[in-house]
Amino acid sequence: MNFFFATVAYEGTHYWGWQKARGRKSIQEEISIALRKLSCEDVIPEAASRTDKGVHARGQSIAFGLKKEITPYRLLKALNAHLSPDIRILEINETTSDFHPTIDAQGKEYRYYLSLGPFQSPMDRLYAWHIPQALDIAAMKDASQELLGTHDFSAFSTKESHSPLCTLSSIDFIYANRKLEIHLKGNRFLYKMARTLVGTLVEVGKGKTFYFNSKKRESVGMTAPAHGLFLHRVVY
Amino acid sequence: MNFFFATVAYEGTHYWGWQKARGRKSIQEEISIALRKLSCEDVIPEAASRTDKGVHARGQSIAFGLKKEITPYRLLKALNAHLSPDIRILEINETTSDFHPTIDAQGKEYRYYLSLGPFQSPMDRLYAWHIPQALDIAAMKDASQELLGTHDFSAFSTKESHSPLCTLSSIDFIYANRKLEIHLKGNRFLYKMARTLVGTLVEVGKGKTFYFNSKKRESVGMTAPAHGLFLHRVVY
Repeated sequence: MNFFFATVAYEGTHYWGWQKARGRKSIQEEISIALRKLSCEDVIPEAASRTDKGVHARGQSIAFGLKKEITPYRLLKALNAHLSPDIRILEINETTSDFHPTIDAQGKEYRYYLSLGPFQSPMDRLYAWHIPQALDIAAMKDASQELLGTHDFSAFSTKESHSPLCTLSSIDFIYANRKLEIHLKGNRFLYKMARTLVGTLVEVGKGKTFYFNSKKRESVGMTAPAHGLFLHRVVY
Repeated sequence: MNFFFATVAYEGTHYWGWQKARGRKSIQEEISIALRKLSCEDVIPEAASRTDKGVHARGQSIAFGLKKEITPYRLLKALNAHLSPDIRILEINETTSDFHPTIDAQGKEYRYYLSLGPFQSPMDRLYAWHIPQALDIAAMKDASQELLGTHDFSAFSTKESHSPLCTLSSIDFIYANRKLEIHLKGNRFLYKMARTLVGTLVEVGKGKTFYFNSKKRESVGMTAPAHGLFLHRVVY
């Protein structure tokens, strides 16, 4: 058995997220089908992050094993030839059987994109959340400081977790030409946490105030839509 | 009669270009349908540039007249409400009956986007031409110098023109992170000229040499694909 570690980029628009789901198109299943075509083996790749329906990725990390003898370079070429152009394998390296992309991940970076101003450019409509109202970015920055560090982030998730402690190491705001990027770095993220952090910060930007430490979902803001979120990279 | 001048952005992917064509979806017809919905008038807007099938625009300039009494602001809101999100009216101002967006244009800027490197990001596949081979950008810059100024650009068009003299005032190359932008500014562009200039420069980047002044289409390079081209702005 040969074990491979790969970096994958995808546009999430037409997929039901990473995870295989009966009767739905998922990234995991598309890669599984491509692997079967080139190796005649049934392989289910594992990923560092189970991105939701509609979420994009620039640097998802995945791992899988194959009985077939193939070099990483030939595997990379063959996989891309079998995949739709909205999923691209960017890099493949060999790894060991004990490597797991979720368990071994030290951290992740998500980037969220917002289009500000009255109208959104047609070219951004699939990749950024359009907010026509003015946002107080300074207030958003201030609020983000309270979110940094290690906390129970239950309030920012729609699923209960046995281990709700996460460390958020940085939240950066990059603003230019009516486009705002919010970069979130942390050791791990709960279900819908990145999007709920962004949705809450956007409501702060519109003038709302929240008490972040209640651990109750209803005490923080909305979940931002999926199409503005990119899994930027996974750190090992 | 009230006359309006508008700036329009669109994603060309799903359209047969600007110009109305029987049985095809065009930007001109989509705007015409939206104008009819809000005014009950048959209006065919004129544009500064007849962008081809699949070409995008960030700053197309259009003009039209309406009998209906409406402020530019209300017209802007109403038009966008009737248009698909891949066409956005960005700005509307009043103008005079003698204004014509093509005749009065002093110049245009086109921007062409290229993705270099072995694989193209899925998010760029509709907006940039993928060139997996290495390009000699310095050679492309050198060759572009010969194209500047006022010449007969017949060789760079697939249609004969009665006035093939155009002035190309600048060609700029912006390269970062395996993405190359080519910015072309000129007083006017012949049919397919921007794409043939880019296609020829890309072939120069792959090592070919051309004699630019032959006025023969076959003596210059290929026409670059439509999906990498953006009409960036029109200058008045």
